This record gives sequence, C-alpha cells and structure tokens, in this order.
Amino acid sequence: MQKPSLPKGTRDFGPVQMARRTYILDTIKETFQLFGYQQIETPAMENLSTLTGKYGDEGDQLLFKILNSGDFLKDVSSEDLEKGSGATLSKVSEKGLRYDLTVPFARYVVMNRNELTFPFKRYQIQPVWRADRPQKGRYREFYQCDADVVGTDSLVCEAEIVLMIRRVFDRLGLKDYSIKINNRKILTGIAEAIGEAGKEGPLCVAIDKLDKIGWEKVQEELIQRGFSQDSTVKLQPLVELGNDIFQKLETLKSFLKDSEVGQKGIAELEEVFEILSKMGENLDFVDFDVMLARGLSYYTGAIFEVKVHGVSIGSVSGGGRYDNLTGVFGLPGVSGVGFSFGVDRIYDVLDELKLFPAESQRGTQLLLVYFDASGKDYALSLLASLRKAGIKTEIYPDEAKIKKQLEFATKKEIPFVGICGDQEIKDQVLALKNLSTGEQEQLNLPEILKRLT
Amino acid sequence: MQKPSLPKGTRDFGPVQMARRTYILDTIKETFQLFGYQQIETPAMENLSTLTGKYGDEGDQLLFKILNSGDFLKDVSSEDLEKGSGATLSKVSEKGLRYDLTVPFARYVVMNRNELTFPFKRYQIQPVWRADRPQKGRYREFYQCDADVVGTDSLVCEAEIVLMIRRVFDRLGLKDYSIKINNRKILTGIAEAIGEAGKEGPLCVAIDKLDKIGWEKVQEELIQRGFSQDSTVKLQPLVELGNDIFQKLETLKSFLKDSEVGQKGIAELEEVFEILSKMGENLDFVDFDVMLARGLSYYTGAIFEVKVHGVSIGSVSGGGRYDNLTGVFGLPGVSGVGFSFGVDRIYDVLDELKLFPAESQRGTQLLLVYFDASGKDYALSLLASLRKAGIKTEIYPDEAKIKKQLEFATKKEIPFVGICGDQEIKDQVLALKNLSTGEQEQLNLPEILKRLT
Repeated sequence: MQKPSLPKGTRDFGPVQMARRTYILDTIKETFQLFGYQQIETPAMENLSTLTGKYGDEGDQLLFKILNSGDFLKDVSSEDLEKGSGATLSKVSEKGLRYDLTVPFARYVVMNRNELTFPFKRYQIQPVWRADRPQKGRYREFYQCDADVVGTDSLVCEAEIVLMIRRVFDRLGLKDYSIKINNRKILTGIAEAIGEAGKEGPLCVAIDKLDKIGWEKVQEELIQRGFSQDSTVKLQPLVELGNDIFQKLETLKSFLKDSEVGQKGIAELEEVFEILSKMGENLDFVDFDVMLARGLSYYTGAIFEVKVHGVSIGSVSGGGRYDNLTGVFGLPGVSGVGFSFGVDRIYDVLDELKLFPAESQRGTQLLLVYFDASGKDYALSLLASLRKAGIKTEIYPDEAKIKKQLEFATKKEIPFVGICGDQEIKDQVLALKNLSTGEQEQLNLPEILKRLT
Repeated sequence: MQKPSLPKGTRDFGPVQMARRTYILDTIKETFQLFGYQQIETPAMENLSTLTGKYGDEGDQLLFKILNSGDFLKDVSSEDLEKGSGATLSKVSEKGLRYDLTVPFARYVVMNRNELTFPFKRYQIQPVWRADRPQKGRYREFYQCDADVVGTDSLVCEAEIVLMIRRVFDRLGLKDYSIKINNRKILTGIAEAIGEAGKEGPLCVAIDKLDKIGWEKVQEELIQRGFSQDSTVKLQPLVELGNDIFQKLETLKSFLKDSEVGQKGIAELEEVFEILSKMGENLDFVDFDVMLARGLSYYTGAIFEVKVHGVSIGSVSGGGRYDNLTGVFGLPGVSGVGFSFGVDRIYDVLDELKLFPAESQRGTQLLLVYFDASGKDYALSLLASLRKAGIKTEIYPDEAKIKKQLEFATKKEIPFVGICGDQEIKDQVLALKNLSTGEQEQLNLPEILKRLT
C-alpha cells in the first residue's frame, strides 16, 4: 500500500490555517472593494505562447509546463531526442501554469478591451506556480494578491494605494511598518546627475547595501561596476539624506536641477503627497526612499515597497507604475499602477507578532452534548432555532461518553457546549458551559440566543 | 505581435461573473460553517502516484500531467520513443493537476490522521482540471465545492446534508427542486429480490430511462443486458410506485422482505427521516427515488442528487455515504458521507431564472464627479469620511468632462453619483443623484452617510 505524500514545495492548508488566511484575505478584499476595485479570475493554465518570453530566461525555466493530452510523443522523432529537451519542448507541451497574475491580467485586458470600462480597477487573488528550488518560506505554489488600475495616469491612484495599504495594516493590527515610496524617474535623474546616465540599475543594487556594508564599500563596488571615481563622490549628498521627507525633496530638487526627468519624478512624488494632504491624510508610515528600485526595468513612475519592522520577514508588499502593460500582446499605451500583498508573508508576520485575533480562527460556537438517546433527541430539537439565529452549532453525531464529546469541543476550539441532561430536558433549558472559564449556567433558548448572537 | 487567446475549455471570470460567483459561494460557505464544517485547501498539483488508478482508465487519460522541470527527456531513450507515450509517461512526468477534491481529501486525511479531530467535517472549494473534450457547459477547469464528514456512521449527517441543501437553495431563492434520496443497500436488495444479485449497476442504468423510453423498452433493455424475463416481471411493482414517501417505504418493505441488506437500507432511510422529524423539520423537497444510483461503485449507504425543475440544466448537486475513503492509501475503515454543489450549474440556473439579486453584483456605491480642479479637491476631501463609514466610494481619477464621468458610473453600474460643483462646495453638500431614478438631492455629509449605509 502506498504512503501518500505532497509534491515538493507544495502545502495543504488545514482548518486553522485556512481560517487565518481567510481573515487576512477578507480584510484585503474589503479594502479593495471600498476603493472601487473589482475581482477577476483567470485560468490556472495559459498557452505557453502567452507565458514565455515575459519573465526572462530564468523565468521561462521556472514555468511548469503541461504535457499535451493523448499521444504526446507523436511529433517527437529520435533526432528531436538527440537535440534535447529545449528543442523538443514545443512538440510535447503547449500550455503552462501561470507564473504570476500580471501577465494573465495583461492578456485579459487585451482580450476584453472593448467591453471593459476604463479606468479599470481590478484585483485578483489566486495561486501561481514556479518550479523554484523549494526552501524555507519559498513554495512552488503560492497565492498572489494583486490590485491594479489601468487606463489612467492620475496620481490619485498612487495616493489611494498608500491608503489601502494603511487600511489593511490598521485592520490587521500592524503598527510598526514603513511604506517606502520612490519614483523611477528620480533614479534615472540621479544616474544622469552623477554623469552615469542609464546606469541606475547597478547604482541601486550597490546603494541597497549601504546599511549592511557602509559607504566606503559601496563606493568600491560602484567603481568595480564601472562607475567613475568622480561619480561616486557626486553621490555623497544622497548618502547623507536625513529622515524628513520634505527635507529630502528639497535636497533632491537641487541635486537634480539639471535633470528634466529627475525633476519630473520629484514633481510626481510631491503631487502624491499633496493629494494625500487634500484627502485630509498625513504621511504616517510613508518613507521616501531615494534608492528604492524593485524590478526597475518594468516600472516607469512610482515604486512602492512595504516593510514590517522587528520581524524576521521584511518586505510584505510592493508595486509601482508602468507605462506599457499590454504592449507585448499588441496593445500599446496601457499605463497603470499596481501592487501586490504577499499573503504568505503577512501570515507569517501576524503569526510571529501573535496578531491573529481568536475570533479569526473560530468556527463552531456551540456544541450540543448529551448522555443518552433522550438527550440526543432534545439536542436535535434545538438545532434549527440556534442555527436560524445564525449561531454556528453542531451536535456530536454519535452517542458517546460525555468526556469524548467535551474533548471533541476542546480539540475543535469550540468555546461553548450546551449540555442536554435529564434536568435540562425537564426544565426546557440548556446547561451552557463556557469551556475556557468553566462557568456553567442553565439558560432557556431565548436566553441562549441572546448570549451567543 | 501575437494575439493572445485562452486555452481551449478554460474561462476568465470578469467582475460581474466573479461577483455573482462570490454571492453563490458565500451563501454555501456560510451554510457549511453554520453546520460546523471547516474549510481546507490542497495543492493544485499532486504526485501522479496519488492520482492515477483512482478514476478508472478513462479518468487517468483525462489527468493533466506536468512535465518534469529541467531536462525532462534525460531518461528517455529511442526505445522508449518506439514504445510510445504510455510507456514513456512516467519518465517525463511525476505530477498532475487534481481531477477532483475527493482524492486529495483522502490523501489529506491519511497524512494528517493523527492531528485531525474526528468526526472531521471539512469543506473545500477549489478548481479541478480534466482534459475532457470541451463542449457547452463542460470545461477543462471548473470549481468543485465539496463538503464531507468522515469518521462517523451517524445518520444525523445525512439529515444535515438535506438541511444544508435546503438552506442554500432557500437563500438563493430556488423554490422548485427535489432532493432525490436513495440508499445503495436498497438497490442491492432489489437486485437480490428479483434474483439478479450483484446486477444493481445495469439495473439502474436501464431503469433510469423509464421516464424517457417507457417500461416496455426498459424491460427489453434489461433482457438484452442478461436479465431473466422472470426478473423483469418481478420488478413491476417498483415501476408503479406512487409519489408518497411513506407509501413507497411500505411497498419496498414487503418487496425486500427476504433481503437483509435491503431491509437495512430501508431502516437507514427511515432513520434519516425520523431524525429530520425530531429536528422539527418536514420532508419538503425530499423525494425518495428508489432507482437513484450515481457512481454506484463508490457509495455504500445514502445517495443524494438535487435536481432543479423547469430549467435546461437538471442536476446541480449530489453525493452519498461511503465506507472506505482512504483504503487505497493504506488507512482502512474511514467512513463518511459527502456531497458537492455544482457551482457552474447553480450559476447557470440562477441566471436562467433571473434570480441574481441586483446587490449580488454591486460593487462601488458612490462615484464622486466634478467639473474642475476645485471640485476635484472638494471630492478628495470627502473620500475618507465616506469610506470610513463603509460606503464603497470612488473618485473619477482624471479631470474629464462630466458626461464621461457619468458614463463611467453607468457602465460600472454604480447606483449613485455625488456631484461636486461650485454651489455644492459653497453649501458644503453633495448633489446626490440616483442614476436609476434620476432623482437628485442636495445632502450634507451626515445625511449622505445616513442615506447610503
């Protein structure tokens, strides 16, 4: 007899995990909806022609491919076999599992462009699959939770992303975090201003290590990456930026005074802050991080990243503005801004900080228990009224020792049991026992409904 | 530039479809939870060793297989090529997409048997994949929505399944349907009673056509399938059963008087009805269908099927009791009862009967529109209060003609717009316009909160 197992890098979610995940996702969904975002879903499988070439060579390697149905080898010759897997792939597979939610969303927008109402605000919460080497915190199947608005350049969207993140974190009880924000145009401007135009990529990679290795080592690395001595000296003022957002903006304005694109980036960022202010909001949790880069090649405007402080997992959300979501599918000029909550990471953070409220994993509220057949009949007669009142109620289905029934309630973390004994039947009440305090009261049905709803 | 497309047999769900699906699934989830069922999720991919051999040869053919990552051809020789796809499969693929939720659930129970609290009531709502030939109403990716309780033989579970179906259908506004119920042991008994023990399979297939082809043709078919003339004559009383459940039970009792298993089946069914009666419930919508079979080989006790009347799609839910969920994974004796809601079919039925409430697809409640920059600033200043009160509110992000903004609201089916003109700013009110009636009123913020919450 085989012993079953799970494929490497995949997970089951049991009742407690599911309840907690639902708690997180419901908070996020409610927030998205409050801001006018609408949910869509796309299929797990996409044509390989849709998926390949979008994630770089490395990404293509990590796509899970679906074997063609039926006689999948019918077009494969022994010459193909010699050429190897790469050359033969297209003959045995034409579909793959989605690698993210962005490419399927782009495909969806292109295929439905005539029916959609723009600006189109969508959210999407579905698993994605990557044939990555599994390791702690990295899975081959995991949920992504994306919100994007496409078809508008309005910076109101950027401001609302900040507000959505704040609302979700507030609801989840997270109090110590930063929403790092930057603008790709500022990065481009910095590279220009130090005389290394176009090199913002390596610049960010090196500067990102500032906290860890210090300014001198960063300078060394920049020079190794081909930056001139002079350019690294020019960078100096950016290393000494303080924490005040408006101070930073002033410093940058003078630093980027000769870079048109840089000035544009500053203006965009200032407008986002101004919109927040018009909305009566402050800049709590917002951190202007001049060197924040994240997937540089894709973003063209705002860049976001959310870090929770004081936990082993840092980044839990990120995103940014892009100019050209759908160009690769023949529809140019679709710009938008989006971001993504890392559900697995938020789960781990809440777990580490013990922020899951007890209610978040509570299922059944009341278990009816009994000693004998007449007690069971009495319990059965009460169920409809309890459930009609919305009280999640179970009856222990088998006649069993009361101890076993109580153990069942404890294991399932059911907070109350309703004991149906002879006296209770006679008095037409329930002995309602709170399993965490041990308190027990004889209550009639209306009293129980009042207590538990 | 490539024109993107969807793989055959797969679908996108846009905002309206998703909202309606969510309405159905929320109704089902709420009901499952009210009865103490807990949600789990399992991975999309399972090892092929878990999946194959569970669904018959035909099912194995319909499994989507995942190509091994990396050099998938490394173990394939040219002799393998000659032997063909069947012989080579295990060398290029070791995982597949789940075909249903039952086998993954069985695997889950076996792998977690020491942690689970039995009786274990679980529900699971996830897509499954089958490489079926796509046709109207049949997809290669579709959601299943299963509830099972395992680790108990109590017939309370059967009674509660009837109640859960009734609650879901009541909430969805479905009024004309039957919950067909039968018991596998009755079918076994009937085959015994007519002297054709063990032939309940072909018996049911033939009798199932009674309504369509009539009793004479059914008899002919039975004889073709190897039944004796005598046995078909003995069947006669079952063809003439009336509609009354208790009448049917009485007839069957005498028909099955010499079949021990048949008597047991009747007793079980009677007990389910008795439990319902003890719960203060009637047998509304319950239809004892003596010939109901459904996946005969699997079920050992109760069998359920739900049909909606007066619509093109009939069966929308089904299930039954089984003795041996996990035997194939080395854990014998796990009995239980489960059923499944066909979400796609319920969707089509509600659509056909126009039963989706308008609220079920409503997202944003209020769009703030404006004529100029000062109107936009005013709108921005109102958003926080509206959203804080839980009103799903959007602002049109770009400064655009008011006509365009109103069109956006209409297309997105937003019921109210709040017009922010100069007079409104002066009076610190909003012109709240109901887009379906055309009514318009000047209301201040507290009045609007009162109106829209």
